[in-house]
Amino acid sequence: MPDASMNGAIEKPKYSFLDDYSEGAHPTLLEALIASNGSQQTGYGNDGYSAEAKRNIRAHLGCGDDVGVFFVPSGTSANAISIAACLRPHEAVVAASTGHIVTRETGAVEASGHKIINVPPVNGKLTPATISKALDDNWHFPHMAKPRLVYISNATEVGTVYTKEELAAIKTLCETKGLLLFMDGARIGAALTSTKNDLTLADVLQLTDIFWIGGTKNGALLGEAVVVKDAALARDFEFYVKQHGSLLAKSRIMGVEFAELFRGTLYFDLARRGNLAAEALSRTIVGAGFALRAETETNQVFAVLPVQLVEELQREFVFYVWEKCDEDWAVVRLLTTWATDAAQLDKFQQTVLRWADKSQDQGRRGVSGEGDTIVDVVFDT
Amino acid sequence: MPDASMNGAIEKPKYSFLDDYSEGAHPTLLEALIASNGSQQTGYGNDGYSAEAKRNIRAHLGCGDDVGVFFVPSGTSANAISIAACLRPHEAVVAASTGHIVTRETGAVEASGHKIINVPPVNGKLTPATISKALDDNWHFPHMAKPRLVYISNATEVGTVYTKEELAAIKTLCETKGLLLFMDGARIGAALTSTKNDLTLADVLQLTDIFWIGGTKNGALLGEAVVVKDAALARDFEFYVKQHGSLLAKSRIMGVEFAELFRGTLYFDLARRGNLAAEALSRTIVGAGFALRAETETNQVFAVLPVQLVEELQREFVFYVWEKCDEDWAVVRLLTTWATDAAQLDKFQQTVLRWADKSQDQGRRGVSGEGDTIVDVVFDT
Amino acid sequence: MPDASMNGAIEKPKYSFLDDYSEGAHPTLLEALIASNGSQQTGYGNDGYSAEAKRNIRAHLGCGDDVGVFFVPSGTSANAISIAACLRPHEAVVAASTGHIVTRETGAVEASGHKIINVPPVNGKLTPATISKALDDNWHFPHMAKPRLVYISNATEVGTVYTKEELAAIKTLCETKGLLLFMDGARIGAALTSTKNDLTLADVLQLTDIFWIGGTKNGALLGEAVVVKDAALARDFEFYVKQHGSLLAKSRIMGVEFAELFRGTLYFDLARRGNLAAEALSRTIVGAGFALRAETETNQVFAVLPVQLVEELQREFVFYVWEKCDEDWAVVRLLTTWATDAAQLDKFQQTVLRWADKSQDQGRRGVSGEGDTIVDVVFDT
Amino acid sequence: MPDASMNGAIEKPKYSFLDDYSEGAHPTLLEALIASNGSQQTGYGNDGYSAEAKRNIRAHLGCGDDVGVFFVPSGTSANAISIAACLRPHEAVVAASTGHIVTRETGAVEASGHKIINVPPVNGKLTPATISKALDDNWHFPHMAKPRLVYISNATEVGTVYTKEELAAIKTLCETKGLLLFMDGARIGAALTSTKNDLTLADVLQLTDIFWIGGTKNGALLGEAVVVKDAALARDFEFYVKQHGSLLAKSRIMGVEFAELFRGTLYFDLARRGNLAAEALSRTIVGAGFALRAETETNQVFAVLPVQLVEELQREFVFYVWEKCDEDWAVVRLLTTWATDAAQLDKFQQTVLRWADKSQDQGRRGVSGEGDTIVDVVFDT
Repeated sequence: MPDASMNGAIEKPKYSFLDDYSEGAHPTLLEALIASNGSQQTGYGNDGYSAEAKRNIRAHLGCGDDVGVFFVPSGTSANAISIAACLRPHEAVVAASTGHIVTRETGAVEASGHKIINVPPVNGKLTPATISKALDDNWHFPHMAKPRLVYISNATEVGTVYTKEELAAIKTLCETKGLLLFMDGARIGAALTSTKNDLTLADVLQLTDIFWIGGTKNGALLGEAVVVKDAALARDFEFYVKQHGSLLAKSRIMGVEFAELFRGTLYFDLARRGNLAAEALSRTIVGAGFALRAETETNQVFAVLPVQLVEELQREFVFYVWEKCDEDWAVVRLLTTWATDAAQLDKFQQTVLRWADKSQDQGRRGVSGEGDTIVDVVFDT
Repeated sequence: MPDASMNGAIEKPKYSFLDDYSEGAHPTLLEALIASNGSQQTGYGNDGYSAEAKRNIRAHLGCGDDVGVFFVPSGTSANAISIAACLRPHEAVVAASTGHIVTRETGAVEASGHKIINVPPVNGKLTPATISKALDDNWHFPHMAKPRLVYISNATEVGTVYTKEELAAIKTLCETKGLLLFMDGARIGAALTSTKNDLTLADVLQLTDIFWIGGTKNGALLGEAVVVKDAALARDFEFYVKQHGSLLAKSRIMGVEFAELFRGTLYFDLARRGNLAAEALSRTIVGAGFALRAETETNQVFAVLPVQLVEELQREFVFYVWEKCDEDWAVVRLLTTWATDAAQLDKFQQTVLRWADKSQDQGRRGVSGEGDTIVDVVFDT
Repeated sequence: MPDASMNGAIEKPKYSFLDDYSEGAHPTLLEALIASNGSQQTGYGNDGYSAEAKRNIRAHLGCGDDVGVFFVPSGTSANAISIAACLRPHEAVVAASTGHIVTRETGAVEASGHKIINVPPVNGKLTPATISKALDDNWHFPHMAKPRLVYISNATEVGTVYTKEELAAIKTLCETKGLLLFMDGARIGAALTSTKNDLTLADVLQLTDIFWIGGTKNGALLGEAVVVKDAALARDFEFYVKQHGSLLAKSRIMGVEFAELFRGTLYFDLARRGNLAAEALSRTIVGAGFALRAETETNQVFAVLPVQLVEELQREFVFYVWEKCDEDWAVVRLLTTWATDAAQLDKFQQTVLRWADKSQDQGRRGVSGEGDTIVDVVFDT
Repeated sequence: MPDASMNGAIEKPKYSFLDDYSEGAHPTLLEALIASNGSQQTGYGNDGYSAEAKRNIRAHLGCGDDVGVFFVPSGTSANAISIAACLRPHEAVVAASTGHIVTRETGAVEASGHKIINVPPVNGKLTPATISKALDDNWHFPHMAKPRLVYISNATEVGTVYTKEELAAIKTLCETKGLLLFMDGARIGAALTSTKNDLTLADVLQLTDIFWIGGTKNGALLGEAVVVKDAALARDFEFYVKQHGSLLAKSRIMGVEFAELFRGTLYFDLARRGNLAAEALSRTIVGAGFALRAETETNQVFAVLPVQLVEELQREFVFYVWEKCDEDWAVVRLLTTWATDAAQLDKFQQTVLRWADKSQDQGRRGVSGEGDTIVDVVFDT
């Protein structure tokens, strides 16, 4: 069980590798916000900045105005609104049991009336086989809710990514079975800039029915952009946004931010920065003779470290202790972002290396890591 | 019927008196946001800025930590969350038929399962008599939903305010009848700085069970502060915030803003500025020989103007044409705020005065205004 | 206010004209139930009796198998299920403020997430004009819920009926405006056998999108038959029935009853019997020199009687005192049904006539009835 | 996968061991219904028969009037209403993944807004250990829905029963953890008359917070009696019944039936009859040399039979083929009830015995049953 002892802390005197929303906005976005501040704009999403942001996003998607783009303030609202908009009351969602909607959204999907059919994740992901199994187990109509939408996260809650082939296979199954495919893109930036990735944003549009692009975890103060492919659904989508309390009067602040993120390649540059930091950190850890609990695909590092080293690191840093393996070893999760301080990262790595050198001298070396199998347990995303 | 022709416009080349959310944040808030940007903070409302904001608000309320304060991104979410948190599934809300939850929130209250019992407003307000009538009409249990919460807005959707006596009378009735009293404070700043007002924020805490302090319409980029008096309700309140998608990962940005608004008297200073502008504008209009549709109590001016004057004003300004009285006269709504440009306001007034002078010369003077009776029709708030 | 003093009574030693569900089933239905009892049948609506009932109903409707027929146990479930099945989350219902879903279903429609837009009734009915007014008042999208379904009752809650012309006019408006038309047929039998009626059941199918045929108030132990015209909606309709807890394992008991009611003309014969009793009663009351509050169109009689006579009648009978007109006069509601006891009805009439004769002798005659204007207030249906 | 080929059949020319709701009512109940038919009664549950039924049930429970008893038409409505009445919007249910609310109610619990946390069943049951595990996995508030109610079925969906010790252990855990305990008693009659049982109805009242007594599967035409221990919850419970469309105008028909079932011991006599038939059937099957998939605790028999025998039996009988073990063997489910025809049961047993004798002669004897481990898979209940 993760150690949540630091959850109560209000102040963070130590440097944090806890998550990717500890800082404010990327400076470029903040400057744009300052510049826009005095301008009078129409409220509730009909402002010029939002219009520009939508144009910029559509340019990346390679699509026209019939594809809807909507800004909402949080990931939970993006998920709940999208699912409520797609489903009839008797229709259910298929999701990994580690999915954010299952584990970290206080039952928001159920609160809008829909059942979630849980399937066991494979490295955090769904597969055609696991989805098919869920369909086979949920056929007794009308006594069972009807599976209608498949929810996936990319990157997943454990930091893994979908390849184009994997995503296409799921989409094909969905089309065969009459299912919609919905992608939670809270960390889609990290996913699309992973070294494992071969998808573009335009591919994602093609291979899903609805998805969202996370701003909060990649440089924005707030905001996620929901992309709705079906024109009929897009036409009424703003009703759902409003009904869920997510149509901000000054929606312009999300417009300003997304206009900057997608004016050029900033969105992807920021995400890649987080991934590269994670990669460097992973290399150091492995180089120091420790194992990773899972291969590092995006900006999440799961490292198996000696408990004594963990305690030493905790004097200077905060991060999640994910799992105690035994008396001597623990899995820690380290999150890096565009904002990760290079000096702090270096200091962290030096501590690891120093400890490794010292323990090597003492012949205490040894790693109990279980290779590259990800345990599909999620603490916090 | 209001003229919505300008709704589609993305750009606003003309100066706007449409609403109180056309601009960004007040400079003090923006500066605080910039200053806070680099600091690492715990997510989801457990940051230091939110803690400070709560302390500042509680100082104004004169209350301890048992009174909960929660930041949410929009007025619709503040209303829907508060009502969902207070009610059991079979319990209903009593509200004026002009109430924001009735007319401008896309059925968000019903979407969380609750009936709203509409009562006819009196100058935008509820009274013990109209509430009692609603109770008398909804007694046939269990065939009728049980009235349990009274929703009022202060200022109301038509700009009027509750006096201490009026509020106390409603509260007394509520206590007698086992009802909770909930105040929508989207414009509570304007209300508490009205010349008609004799309530303090601490009074509002005493005389309601739950209420919220609107940031969006009084200088913030986003954010409303819900104040929950009952300790048991406050204990679980954050679940509702999260379930409704309103617990922002970077909730800190609302903390930063509210910390500034309530550090001293800024919140009230900003609101008063809007009221004073409305008062000045009203004086000019009356001085020019035109009638007000209702006495100006806060930052909303309802003026009866000649259609020809309206058309002349529309060349330079945008505002809502609320109602056509006849061929020659129309009611317009003008909203002023802390951000109202003094020069633009002056220009507007000069146009009115010039037109009045000119028409006086031509003997066309005449006003069809119906005195100070507010027609309880709401277009946009 | 109606006198509810007898509501608490468990025993009914006095003869009741309170409602049309005080007795059990019509003998023909009961016999069929007895005859069917030992037969083994597939559960959950797939039994032979339900199949027969659907065939019989479709024969009356003049339609094929693509029109769905579904049996549910109560009027509230028929209404809530139909509305939930027809609407998307942001869509609203337009209904008379006297509508059963507004006044007597404990917010069941809102509990499934939908707003009801109330319009003032005209003799208990909606008209194209009042519906249009509701649409005109609910246009500000996406801030307002979208009107999508019109709910009417036939007979209405005050006993009036829709003519073919009236219904066709509403249907035409609905088609023009993209609205569905839904008819609550709790008392459709009384409606279609009214002397004011010129509609057939087949007409109702043509002129609505979905409606139901009430069994409970016309001879059945329980059960209402929902008729779903749209084939796509009909295909999934049973999911909603099940989700609302209304798919009975022994749904056969509703099948048995409806098979009998619609084997020939029994359903209409029973309803007509109730109407004729009401007509006779009305004639007697008028003949005795008293006024009706409204013309008797179906099986509800609203009579204006002297309070002293009311008190005398209450010694032998129970019925609702609908409204006190003044010290001396009151409006009472008298409901007749297929089960109304002829002897008891005669006794009631004799009491009225005797009292009239006596008071005529004493010169106390006088009637304060206000002619045939129905006051659109509903106590219990 | 179960063979559902007979699901489509409307007529059942073969004798059915499919379920316990294939027949109508027990004759005693039917006679009472006939006797009550002409009596005028107050509607919506305020009739004399319902009052008597409540008295009779309370006598069995050994409780006073403060314990509420409510009649609803179906098991799904009993479950959905009870859960909706007990929970706040952010609270979740803990249930076995085989629970009826999880697998056979079309998401009715989620439709009223609540998450179900699934735990793996142990012989169809929950245990303190599995419940504790669910609590340990759902602690991250307010990001996770709050576990608040434990749902169990007795008998379970696979026919097993809770002992007093097992139930008391769960209740103790619930009290320690602030959880309510809710028992689905669709087959509580079968449970309390099982040879494995040591609970009385009064014990169930003591050891749960809310539970229901199933009528539909034990001799009634329809109806389940929900028993609400908490007086405050009981006070408002009828609102929920009505809101869910389950307050029948002629609720009297459920009153009549339950008055008979609990006047003496009829309810238990009927259930025991089903159990005894299952016991006899099980003995025959084992005596013939075949295995049971699980020990027979109530009225469900899970037998491992040769496929050829299954096919021979299917010529005369219908029942569910639960699972194909391999080419030669299959698990079948056989349900017995108070209405099971003794002659048909005998014929079924003779066919089994004859087949066993014949195959013994041919030396083909052999059983692949896996002893008494119940596979926690549920097809239809």
